[in-house]
Amino acid sequence: MAEEKEKKAAPKKEKLADPIAATIDVASQQLIARAQQLGVETVFDRAETMKPCNIGAQGTCCKNCGMGPCRLPLPKSGIEGEDTRKGLCGATANTIAARNFIRMIAGGAAAHSDHGRGVAEVFLTAARKETNDYQIKDTVKLVQVAEALGVATTVEVDGETKDRDLDEVAVEVGEIAMAEWGKPEGEVFYLKRAPQALYEKWEKQGVRPRNIDREIVEIMHRTHIGVDQDYRNLMKQGVRAAIGDGWGGSMLATDLQDILFGTPYPLQSEANLGVMKEDHVNLIVHGHEPILSEMIVAASQSKEMLDYAKEKGAKGIQLSGICCTANEILQRHGIPPAANFLQQELAIITGACDAMVVDIQCIMQNVANVANCFHTKLITTHPIAKMEQENVIHIEFDEHYAMEDAKRIVKMAIDNFENRGAEVMIPRQKATQIAGFGVESIQYHLGGTFRGDYYTLNDNIINGRIRGIAGVVGCNNARTRHNEGHIQVVKELIKNDVIVLTTGCNGIACAMEGLLTPEAAGVYCGAGLAEVCETVGIPPVLHMGSCVDNSRILLAATEVVNAGGLGNDISELPVAGSAPEWMSEKAISIGQYFVASGVYTVFGVTFPTTGAPVFQDFLFKEMEKMYGGMWDLEIDPIKHAHKMIAHIDSKRKALGIDKARERVLMDMADRQKLEA
Amino acid sequence: MAEEKEKKAAPKKEKLADPIAATIDVASQQLIARAQQLGVETVFDRAETMKPCNIGAQGTCCKNCGMGPCRLPLPKSGIEGEDTRKGLCGATANTIAARNFIRMIAGGAAAHSDHGRGVAEVFLTAARKETNDYQIKDTVKLVQVAEALGVATTVEVDGETKDRDLDEVAVEVGEIAMAEWGKPEGEVFYLKRAPQALYEKWEKQGVRPRNIDREIVEIMHRTHIGVDQDYRNLMKQGVRAAIGDGWGGSMLATDLQDILFGTPYPLQSEANLGVMKEDHVNLIVHGHEPILSEMIVAASQSKEMLDYAKEKGAKGIQLSGICCTANEILQRHGIPPAANFLQQELAIITGACDAMVVDIQCIMQNVANVANCFHTKLITTHPIAKMEQENVIHIEFDEHYAMEDAKRIVKMAIDNFENRGAEVMIPRQKATQIAGFGVESIQYHLGGTFRGDYYTLNDNIINGRIRGIAGVVGCNNARTRHNEGHIQVVKELIKNDVIVLTTGCNGIACAMEGLLTPEAAGVYCGAGLAEVCETVGIPPVLHMGSCVDNSRILLAATEVVNAGGLGNDISELPVAGSAPEWMSEKAISIGQYFVASGVYTVFGVTFPTTGAPVFQDFLFKEMEKMYGGMWDLEIDPIKHAHKMIAHIDSKRKALGIDKARERVLMDMADRQKLEA
Repeated sequence: MAEEKEKKAAPKKEKLADPIAATIDVASQQLIARAQQLGVETVFDRAETMKPCNIGAQGTCCKNCGMGPCRLPLPKSGIEGEDTRKGLCGATANTIAARNFIRMIAGGAAAHSDHGRGVAEVFLTAARKETNDYQIKDTVKLVQVAEALGVATTVEVDGETKDRDLDEVAVEVGEIAMAEWGKPEGEVFYLKRAPQALYEKWEKQGVRPRNIDREIVEIMHRTHIGVDQDYRNLMKQGVRAAIGDGWGGSMLATDLQDILFGTPYPLQSEANLGVMKEDHVNLIVHGHEPILSEMIVAASQSKEMLDYAKEKGAKGIQLSGICCTANEILQRHGIPPAANFLQQELAIITGACDAMVVDIQCIMQNVANVANCFHTKLITTHPIAKMEQENVIHIEFDEHYAMEDAKRIVKMAIDNFENRGAEVMIPRQKATQIAGFGVESIQYHLGGTFRGDYYTLNDNIINGRIRGIAGVVGCNNARTRHNEGHIQVVKELIKNDVIVLTTGCNGIACAMEGLLTPEAAGVYCGAGLAEVCETVGIPPVLHMGSCVDNSRILLAATEVVNAGGLGNDISELPVAGSAPEWMSEKAISIGQYFVASGVYTVFGVTFPTTGAPVFQDFLFKEMEKMYGGMWDLEIDPIKHAHKMIAHIDSKRKALGIDKARERVLMDMADRQKLEA
Repeated sequence: MAEEKEKKAAPKKEKLADPIAATIDVASQQLIARAQQLGVETVFDRAETMKPCNIGAQGTCCKNCGMGPCRLPLPKSGIEGEDTRKGLCGATANTIAARNFIRMIAGGAAAHSDHGRGVAEVFLTAARKETNDYQIKDTVKLVQVAEALGVATTVEVDGETKDRDLDEVAVEVGEIAMAEWGKPEGEVFYLKRAPQALYEKWEKQGVRPRNIDREIVEIMHRTHIGVDQDYRNLMKQGVRAAIGDGWGGSMLATDLQDILFGTPYPLQSEANLGVMKEDHVNLIVHGHEPILSEMIVAASQSKEMLDYAKEKGAKGIQLSGICCTANEILQRHGIPPAANFLQQELAIITGACDAMVVDIQCIMQNVANVANCFHTKLITTHPIAKMEQENVIHIEFDEHYAMEDAKRIVKMAIDNFENRGAEVMIPRQKATQIAGFGVESIQYHLGGTFRGDYYTLNDNIINGRIRGIAGVVGCNNARTRHNEGHIQVVKELIKNDVIVLTTGCNGIACAMEGLLTPEAAGVYCGAGLAEVCETVGIPPVLHMGSCVDNSRILLAATEVVNAGGLGNDISELPVAGSAPEWMSEKAISIGQYFVASGVYTVFGVTFPTTGAPVFQDFLFKEMEKMYGGMWDLEIDPIKHAHKMIAHIDSKRKALGIDKARERVLMDMADRQKLEA
């Protein structure tokens, strides 16, 4: 007996990840293999040794009170007859799944919006000139944003209209912006930027957010035991909070960042682990905010730091990024991303990462353990994001001493250059990319010659060269092969003439695959899309920035509506959204604000409501009647893309432009006639 | 094989609840037995047929991203050596348990605070005279609250100081109060009401809430994947949000309710299911807010409605309550509570409940199913709390038409009187109680003759007649015998001369047991406490109101500090807190703000961190060094009470008043000498 017990207690032999099965990226395969040789555990190993809880994954495990967790798995044979599953309080599978779903929205919206608030605070500090390190950079956008926030940009002096002092405008913008999180009356200002038809839909459904925070807090209240127990009503609040994210917190984050750090315009860069350089100090910034990383970019390019690096025997400083901090400094400075979410441990396993600086969101706690196996200094910088492990260094970043803090961090990386121990193994893989698209640059590239709108884009959608627009965004997920979903979905879309707007880890994946180049058009695109891309010189996949920059996609879609010819609302456009490898709660919030803005949105990998089919039907079907958009789940990437294409085609048909496209595809002569 | 499979798939024979084992309350036993005879399922049945998830109950199941849920059970043998458990991202058991714990705080703080915001909105409507149904009732408290919120109550006119117009003061109080939820700068006003030493502790620890909502939202952000991964730092935010509840949202709820509806003073009432009357229309209000129920009290006592009831063959209207809506109308109007949390289904099973009106929080979704088995009309009234079931009637309450809505509901109950179908079975059990204590009435009863403070109370603590003060509060939990923990803990405390302040479902349990009467002193108390109670004519257990009214206990403790002789901070007082049958996330938030206010706080039943011993140690031990208070778990009610008593004795010793008490207990002559 004793022997048997011992046998049971012995750890199971862990089946390590097969690098080929874990990722489609060759650089990552090499480093996963290296991690295994060195005995360094990564997320790829843990994904094999720990399976997710099946009931929790179905969305039907409720742990919102101390009598549970109550688990309501869906029987394998499904529900026949009445669904009698109940938690202790009587909560049904629908109630439980809806509670969990909107708490995910609360987590995601809080993450984005709190990020936005942090930016607003720095913005106000800069506007009030309490710091020299941050200044208003983009005054054109400042004026635009002021108008959207109801801040006067002109003033009447002696009967004449004059421009107001921009410093004054900036302070007022900062103050009004800060109030968006908690104002006691009114509604989120930016809602009025949406197409009027959409605004009216929100009004009718009662989902206009009053402010950003309140809707998140109300989710937490409504999901408390014994409050809201009607999945439709729960979702109403979920929608409201998600709109407060997309058209509130995230949009403010993007706008204020653009004003402070410059609105992105297309620029060239590279991507993948191969951007690291053996003979350089490798400093990696990881997380989501540009506040600190903007300063690190400047510090790492300063003569003082470059000289110091050379003094320490390095040829220079190679700054690179992971996750959305990467996207932020990519789109404004061309700093290359080294990795997306699932590669964060691998960047350290190169042995060449002298320091990794993290701020907030999507930072695996295990990077601390991996860093502990190498010489890498892991530095947390944000007061709300520390790590338990002792080897982690915390340098709390203060915007009032921004450059000073940034230099201290860069110096720490340089000082650590000489401590590299393990043999360095930087994969050679990297790809060229063009990033930095946005509402403004699409207008520039695809607008009309004489009118500052989306004329050319709309025209090419109407004539069918461009079949439609897809937003493909989101995370990586260790429960599926790294980057495979991202790349297959995007390739299938552009092959079928759907232009892709990308952000987040999908953007990095596409960059690594070479899809963010004008040259990709000739290789991967259908004839129509290829022709447009080649004519105007853009990639078929446009990198729109970070996760909060999904708000750019909302505004771009609004511009398409405003440019005319494609209906009166986003829901009428031939567009679709996708997160093939979603993982974070932010993705759920983003998906929900896209759905509530009229976009058919397909997720890959898994969906956290499968245990509650009635509720899932509400999300997948009923919601379309309310907002024009709805959710879907499709794990197979090719089918996933074709569901989006089918939706785009149905919208083309409803707009009466399906015939145009049929001609385009079938007959060149017809097409030329159509263009005449 | 096929046969074996079928066998497995067959449902387990459900073991129904044994009424005696399920509750100590005889009335409830009778109705559980009746439910079983009628085949009506209740929470007592479900508690036996569905076990909680063991890993979730330990606090070590993380479902905060789409790669999980990741489960990290504590091995039965405990952790030997290094704890290598990790989620996919690398989150440790400490990180996961801390994330879950502070998300519970977020849920609880959101529930209380959102309730408070709803009151503030009605308050402002009343102050602005946009409704006739609500008016400022307690102007003394209005002035007090104005001063605490920094609203001027006097004005200088021609060099003379005059009282400001109270209508004006009220509007300003309403506006300032509303801003407490979301103001972009500053900190929660009421923090300054705490003892100075406590305020300074909060300052040092960096946990002063900036506003109420923001701290809840920041919890949601910090617990998102990849943000805060240091349990100490996570708890810092948990503490901050909890303080924003206790010293913010809850305290504002209590204060504004008192101003609108009157500050409670002791009054007599009854408690338990026996308060329902067979020949009366039985209308039960259930939930947590007094906003609607205040109107229902007035409506049900109106001649119009009483006449209508008689017309329909009833002798009158018996209004009663469940949960904290009950406590609210008990403390201000003497309306008797019929039931606490676990009895809510049973009230319907009497067959005599003509209508149950619910607002928010702790309403079991199964009441709709039970109501469906009887004639009971179940009416939801709050826009944020609906129910999925079709038999539920939704009458959305609008404070602008408060009395109209209330009458409509009362009329619906009266109209339903004649539809009683099943044989009515109202248990005979009910008990007399005195409720309605508060900061002001304790001052009245236990203050000094010439000084309006807590002199007599402090004096009797110092001389040892009263050994200490315990706050015993909180829910019922179906995972333990209904009311047993409540009653045993309270009886053991008063037996040992510890005076008990109670709120919530503990208050109702104590009332049902007859502990809320002055006569209980002679039966259950130690000699010292009995003497005090008998002298001043109070029960040994003082009912302080609803869950949000735990803020009254904070202020009462502050008054004790201010009255002098017992140290400079709440943490120095001989006090302890307890929730013997906690269940809701609100209880966790309450517990945390008590701990952060310096109170040793013991929970019964279970604790959601047992799977993360290091983190649990932080809560149970380390936290004392930071705030003077700490958590504990003790399932056995007698040991539970004695842990509290031991803590109280240790505080007495530190204050140097342990000797006094020893004499009191041991020698009457000594005691008389001491008092001389």
